[in-house]
Amino acid sequence: MQNLNSCPMIHAMNIIGNKWSPIIIYAIGDRTIRFGQLAALIDNISRKVLAEQLKSLENEGVINRESFAEIPPRVEYSLTEKGVDLLPILNQICAWGSTMQEEVVCEAILK
Amino acid sequence: MQNLNSCPMIHAMNIIGNKWSPIIIYAIGDRTIRFGQLAALIDNISRKVLAEQLKSLENEGVINRESFAEIPPRVEYSLTEKGVDLLPILNQICAWGSTMQEEVVCEAILK
Repeated sequence: MQNLNSCPMIHAMNIIGNKWSPIIIYAIGDRTIRFGQLAALIDNISRKVLAEQLKSLENEGVINRESFAEIPPRVEYSLTEKGVDLLPILNQICAWGSTMQEEVVCEAILK
Repeated sequence: MQNLNSCPMIHAMNIIGNKWSPIIIYAIGDRTIRFGQLAALIDNISRKVLAEQLKSLENEGVINRESFAEIPPRVEYSLTEKGVDLLPILNQICAWGSTMQEEVVCEAILK
């Protein structure tokens, strides 16, 4: 059983505290997207890890999964309201990452 | 060699994309803090993992480590400017985590 009294920061990190979750949420953004499109969009993620992360985020109530009984089967993902709430935060993390990258470039040039 | 042209979001996640880094940065905040104080502040983190994460964040330029030649030796940590830039973002993640926790509580009551 989850400790409901735990720090909200730790609670948040239990949901999005890994390398891929924020990237997946960011990649879905405000649209509905198919599994294959998402896999193509995110460099270096294996389909297995992507599927596991999507399942976990669906269980946490951050993303919606809708499957259509078609041939071939179609599965679409979108963010829930809670997931959409993360987008402005992830935008800021992205901007922060950008300033960190610039620093890396500068250091590489200086060396 | 790091790919300097990679997405800034992935770059950011390579630095803070794990459960503990954001929690450690958040716990340091705007003060200077000793290793033992930090270990006491963060529930459930082992001293080994804390030391590894601090080393990694120091290498990434997110935290400063200052050691004093005293007996017993004293080591203090604080955030660099880049680390301080993360604090308002982490505050928002904490607030998001709080709304997620409320939802868990409500669901637990409803069941």
